[in-house]
Parts: sequence; structure tokens; C-alpha cells
Amino acid sequence: MEEKIIEMIEGKKFGLLKETLSQMNPADLAPIFEEIEEKEIPVIFRILPKELAAEVFVEMDSDMQQFLIEAFSDKELREVMDELFMDDTVDIIEEMPANVAKRILKQTSVTTRKMINQLLAYPDDSAGSIMTTEYIDLEKHMTVDEAFDRIRKIGFESESIYTCYVTDRRRKLLGIVSVKDLLLNPKDCIIDDIMDENIIFANTLDDKEDVATQFEKYDLLAIPVVDKENRLVGIVTVDDAIDVIQEEASEDIEKMAAILPSEKTYLKTGVFETFKARIPWLLFLMISATFTGAIISSFESKLTACLALIAFIPMLMGTGGNSGSQSSVTVIRALSLGDIDFPDIFKVVWKELRVSVVCGVVLGIVNFIKLYLVDFLWLKTFDPGIELFEIITVCVTLVLVVIVAKLVGAILPIVAKKIGFDPAVMASPLVTTILDAVSLIIYFSIAASLLKI
Amino acid sequence: MEEKIIEMIEGKKFGLLKETLSQMNPADLAPIFEEIEEKEIPVIFRILPKELAAEVFVEMDSDMQQFLIEAFSDKELREVMDELFMDDTVDIIEEMPANVAKRILKQTSVTTRKMINQLLAYPDDSAGSIMTTEYIDLEKHMTVDEAFDRIRKIGFESESIYTCYVTDRRRKLLGIVSVKDLLLNPKDCIIDDIMDENIIFANTLDDKEDVATQFEKYDLLAIPVVDKENRLVGIVTVDDAIDVIQEEASEDIEKMAAILPSEKTYLKTGVFETFKARIPWLLFLMISATFTGAIISSFESKLTACLALIAFIPMLMGTGGNSGSQSSVTVIRALSLGDIDFPDIFKVVWKELRVSVVCGVVLGIVNFIKLYLVDFLWLKTFDPGIELFEIITVCVTLVLVVIVAKLVGAILPIVAKKIGFDPAVMASPLVTTILDAVSLIIYFSIAASLLKI
Repeated sequence: MEEKIIEMIEGKKFGLLKETLSQMNPADLAPIFEEIEEKEIPVIFRILPKELAAEVFVEMDSDMQQFLIEAFSDKELREVMDELFMDDTVDIIEEMPANVAKRILKQTSVTTRKMINQLLAYPDDSAGSIMTTEYIDLEKHMTVDEAFDRIRKIGFESESIYTCYVTDRRRKLLGIVSVKDLLLNPKDCIIDDIMDENIIFANTLDDKEDVATQFEKYDLLAIPVVDKENRLVGIVTVDDAIDVIQEEASEDIEKMAAILPSEKTYLKTGVFETFKARIPWLLFLMISATFTGAIISSFESKLTACLALIAFIPMLMGTGGNSGSQSSVTVIRALSLGDIDFPDIFKVVWKELRVSVVCGVVLGIVNFIKLYLVDFLWLKTFDPGIELFEIITVCVTLVLVVIVAKLVGAILPIVAKKIGFDPAVMASPLVTTILDAVSLIIYFSIAASLLKI
Repeated sequence: MEEKIIEMIEGKKFGLLKETLSQMNPADLAPIFEEIEEKEIPVIFRILPKELAAEVFVEMDSDMQQFLIEAFSDKELREVMDELFMDDTVDIIEEMPANVAKRILKQTSVTTRKMINQLLAYPDDSAGSIMTTEYIDLEKHMTVDEAFDRIRKIGFESESIYTCYVTDRRRKLLGIVSVKDLLLNPKDCIIDDIMDENIIFANTLDDKEDVATQFEKYDLLAIPVVDKENRLVGIVTVDDAIDVIQEEASEDIEKMAAILPSEKTYLKTGVFETFKARIPWLLFLMISATFTGAIISSFESKLTACLALIAFIPMLMGTGGNSGSQSSVTVIRALSLGDIDFPDIFKVVWKELRVSVVCGVVLGIVNFIKLYLVDFLWLKTFDPGIELFEIITVCVTLVLVVIVAKLVGAILPIVAKKIGFDPAVMASPLVTTILDAVSLIIYFSIAASLLKI
């Protein structure tokens, strides 16, 4: 498809091109502009029907949007901006450099500009920042027929028309009524009688992640957003909620991998930006790891007495780290999905304790079979220096390390959340670094007492 | 709220209870049943209005559903099942033991039973398995007014009424028309003239994750699902797409933490199940780690010559592991969001190479400052045995380890996906284990040549 379009552009078959592009979906059209030669971009964009052009514009990344805005005449810019929904306009302005943003604002009416500035003021992670101000509002004394008239009148400009919001004169939200309810009730029914007053709503300053969770829990298409005085100021639609869900999952995954979260896609993020997102944790974890080194150093004299013990360090640290991150990652995900919360900490500890004992014992036994029966007795791969006692030391350490790792891995994120830290940061790498040190201390302590070194 | 309800139940205030519960949202009501004494559960469930009861039933977990089904008379069971949408019925039957499933099927009509069996036959991760068969179908010669009549007639039984599907006599999908289009067009308009023939649709056997991605990309409320003969067989609604998105994110996160994915929530998963999900990777990684041990053993004689080198092993292995998992996790997420694909591999390698050189050099320099200037010259914390040369060895190793780690971490998932493996499995733990061995080999090789040991 893409190739055909590029061919049409090169062949200057603009008639055919217009017909083909008009049939396409904005989300499929936007990436095609990335493939077009720069000087052709504004030409092709102007071919699109007005409404489609605006939809394609929303789907483009901000570099392309900026390029186009700079190529637009004031009239063209105003035309595109007029077609956009308020939340998309705000998203675009947020990404633009100051002079471009100013030019966009200059092309909007005074009321729109006021609205935009209000929306721009909401914090980045708030419900207010993702809401749109175009929705269907009804009055409670209207009939179903009058409601349909209102939808027909303002429906063109509303992003989501399937849930209508009943407000009083002060814009206080009284109830909601779905188009389904309107369709399935007689035409002379009064809205007041059929509206649902038991409303799921959000406040402008609510965390957008919490708002997205409501969509999932209550299977909603839109959520009304009210201000401090309980006045309806906008709605969040399900498509934006899905974007938030994906963003938050990506953010959690990045934090679990010790990366500072970024909002751009992988290939769009520059080398230096990527470096900046990754280096802080790498530095911190590198410095922390020197403590683990210090533990080894302090046992150095004892290790000299039994050099074979060193070879087991990677296995013990690795298994401890893996066991711990299994627990921490599971707990972090459960926390962010709302499956568990602080009061469940004892249930979590009790469960992890039992799981860790079973895991630890199984790993210990398998390890003993491998080290003693296979390597020591059968294959005789060990140095003559190693004894049954040393193998037992390793296996006992392993069991203890797994138990401690799983408990630490499970408790840390819950406590972190309770005291106001981000649980995702408590994941793999930090837990692993802590567990590296703990594993070594357990190992050397057991070795010291069992082997009397 | 919950406490008040429990009080009402204990005080047997059933009138007040009925009123309170009827106002509540099914998603909030379902968890309350977990808190009620077992013998009271069916009593309270029977208090609920029929439609709400069915909605609450859908929100319950399968243990509670089974308990209730066993307490239902055949008539009650039939009443609840009649209210359910087809996709929910199928989900419930899938979770039930054979005898309970059989009893449910016995209470349904012959056509419904046939439909259920058909839906049960779709593979677990397919679009067919999450679709519902209740939707609004229109014919192309209908007028807008006739379309509304049809919606009023069958809308009660449809899960999603806002997108209507235009089919021919053989149920072939011709186009879609939204209720918004119907509302904003004159009443005598013919559907054929306003329907959209450029349809985003799925096949019954498509991966449900791919279908969910379409919702995100095209901002849809529902997607039609067609069979091999292009006949419309059902629709997937946006609420189910959100569930799939969350499940898939959880699954990716679990795989990245070396856990076999599970569908249950954390606290609902038993100890033995949790153990089974975690032990395979722990065992595999433990055995793999013994190779790392073997590398240390094989260098043992050389290490004896320079025991101080051992203390740096955890820092080098840790930094290598962290650098690698940063890259692998970023690449895996980008793959699963569709931001990159196999043809982008060279772009990815080129980017990671540059990022890794910058990260590696910065880490190397900081490490040199810490080891040489702070520890060695200033604090003098090192054994007399250590020399500038050894510190340089450690820092050079660090730079190389970071570069190799980031490249391996980025390439492995892309290659894994290309050859048909799950990229998420290539994440942290497996990459870390591979990098542990690689880091040690680099370390000892550099040490051997630089220090001539």
C-alpha cells in the first residue's frame, strides 16, 4: 500500500492519490508522511479532505506536526485547529516550542484560548491533563426527543456522544444517561426519570492512572471529570484511558529495569536522551556493588583457606537475585493493578514464606544432587580440595538465600508504596543489589561456622 | 460501605439492604460477597434485582461462581444464564469443572448450546475466544429510521450497540455504521449511503493481543470478527480489549522476571501454583550459573596470584547484567508495542552501540575515580597487594562489559522474535546469566594479558 502511494506521488497522479488517501484510516495515513520527501509533505497534506487532514495531523509525531505548522499559512493552521478536539489541541501545544505554541494560540478564539490555557495548567499526570471539554450536556427536564435534538445539534463537535451528562445551571453534575437508555426508552420520557445518579466520576487532580483503572473496573466508555466545586469540566474517553494503561505499563517495566521512564518511542529517543535515562541507576548500582566487593575483601583471608568456595558465588548470588525479583515483580504488578495493598502485607509474607521454603528446598536438593552425586562422585570434576562438608555449606546457603530473597523481594515494594516511594523502583536491580550483599553474608557466615575457617 | 452492608445482613434488615445494594455498581458489589458468611451468600444474592444479579455474577471470581451455581435451583441458574452475554457465559463455563459446566449447558436452549460449544472451540489466545455474538446487524437497504427500530428491538440483548454491522443474506460483512452517524443523518437516509466500507476487522483465529492493539491504534469501541468465509460471527468490545492489554502487560512483566505467566490474581494463586510458576526458571538459571562458577574455577590458579581481583567480580557482573537488561527490556517493550520490528535491527544495534559506549566510558571513568583517587590514594582502603595496573584492568573491563551487555541485550530479543521464540523470555534473567559468563571471560582475559598472570 505504502509503496503504491509513494509511486502515485512520484508520478504526480494527484486525482487517484486523493481518492486512495480519502479511503484510508488516519492511523495508517500518518506514518506514510514519514516516507515522503520533505518538500512534498505539505502538498500531499493539502490534498486530504479537511476532516481527515485534522485526524491525520493528530496521529503524527510532534516533529512532523511542527514541520507542518511551520509550512501552514495562518488560515490553514486555523482550519486544522478548528477541526481538532480540545484534548488533542492541548497535547499538540504541549509538545511545541514556545514560538510555535504562541502562533497556534493566536489562531484560536478568545474563549478557546482561555480553555486551552486552563487545560495546560493541570499537572502532567492528572485527569485534567487528558480530559476533553467537548461532551453532550443535557438538562434534567428534557424529554428523550429533546435530548436527541441536542445530540444532533452539538454531536458533530463532541468526541464521545454515547454518554450524556445531566447538569444543573451551575454545571453541577446530576446524573448520566447513555444513548442506549435514550434509544430504549419512549420518546416522551423525562431525562430526570431515566438518568443514573450513581455516577463514577473523577476529580481534575486525580492521578490519570487511577482514572484509567476505573475504566477497566467498571467497563466504561467515558468518565466525567469535575472540579473542586463538583462542576463538570470535561470527560476522559476510553481511547485515552487505553493510552494511559499502556504508558503506565511501559513505565513500570522501565523502572523495573532500572531505567528512568521516557514518553517517546524507542527509535524516536535520541542517543543522549537514552543515555540520560539509563546512566543514573547504572552509576548508583555500580557504586552499591562495591559494598558487595568489600564483603568479599573482608572475608579474603578465610577464602584463601578454601578457594573452592569462590566458584559458587555467582550461582548463589544469581539464584538469590532471581528468586527475589520474581517476588518483587509479582508484588509490584499486583500493587499497580490494585490486587493487593498495604493491609495485605501479612498475607503476602505468609504466602511468600511458604513458596520460598518449597522453592529453596527443591533448589537445594537439586543442587546437592548435581554437586555431590554428579560432579563429585561420578564425574569427579572437582579439585581434590573440596569436601562433602563444603557442598553441604553451599546447599544450606542456597535454601536460606532463596527464603530471604523472596521475603525481602515481596516486603520491600509494599513498604515502599506505604511510605510514599514508587514500588516499581524497588524492583529487580535494587532488590538484586541488596540481595547480592545479603547472600554473601549468609554464605560466608555459614561457611565460617560449618567449615570452621 | 462494606461494613454497613455486613451490619445490615447481621441485623437482617433486608428491606434496607435491597435498596442499598440495588444502587451499587456490580464491580463494587462482587467483592462484598467474599466477606459474607457462606450460608448467607445465596440469600443475599437472591435479594438483588435480576439484571444486577447477573452483572454481579459476572464480576465474581470462579470459586464464588461455582459455589453459587451449586446453590442455585435449575430455574435460578437458567434465569442468571439468560441475562448473561455470550462471551461471559463462555468464560464462566471454561472455568468450571466438567459436571458444573454440563449442568449450565443443560439449562440453555439448543441454539445457545450450539453457539457456546462453537465459542469454546476457539483457541485460548484467539479473537474468537473473547468475542461476543450479540451485536446489532442491519441490512443495507434500511433507512436510518428502520435502523433505529432494529436497535430498539434487539438493543436490550446486545453488549455494544454503538457500532452496527451491515451484512448481506449470507452474513458477509459489507460495512459498519455508528449510532453517531445514524443520529447525525436524516431519518430517511439509506444505510448503504452512509455506511463505512473501509472496515477494521479481525479473523476468529487472530491473536487476541493483535486485536487489542487495533483498538489502541484506531481508537475503536468494538471490532467485528469474521470467519474464514468472511462471514460476521461476533464482535470484540473495548472493555475486553482493555483486559487483554492488561493481561499481556502482566504476562510480559512476569516473563521478564523469569516467571511462567498465570491468569489469576496474586492472592488467588495457591502456594503450589506459585511454586510451579517460579521453579522451572530458577532451576534452569541455577544450573546455568554453575557454568559461570566453572569459569572462575578454571582461572583459580591465576586468581590465587591476584586475590584482590575477586572482590570486583560482583560489581562487574552486576553492572553488566543491569546494562544488558536495560537494553533487552526496552527492546522487548518496543517489540510488543509494535514500535520496532526485525528490519529495524541495524538501527537498534547502531543506537545501542552509541549509547553503550557513552554509558561504558562514563561508568569506567567514575569507577576509576572511585577506585584510584578515593579508595587507593585518599582513603587507602585497599590491601597493599593492589596496584594501579589492576585498577586499570577493572575499568577497561567495565567499559567492554557494558558495550557487550547492551548489544547482546538488544539483539537477543529481536532475533528471538524473528525465529519464533517469545522475546520476553529473552529478558533480564536469561540475558543476565549469559552476560555473567561473558563478563567473567572478558575480565579474566584482560587481566591475563594486562597483568601477565
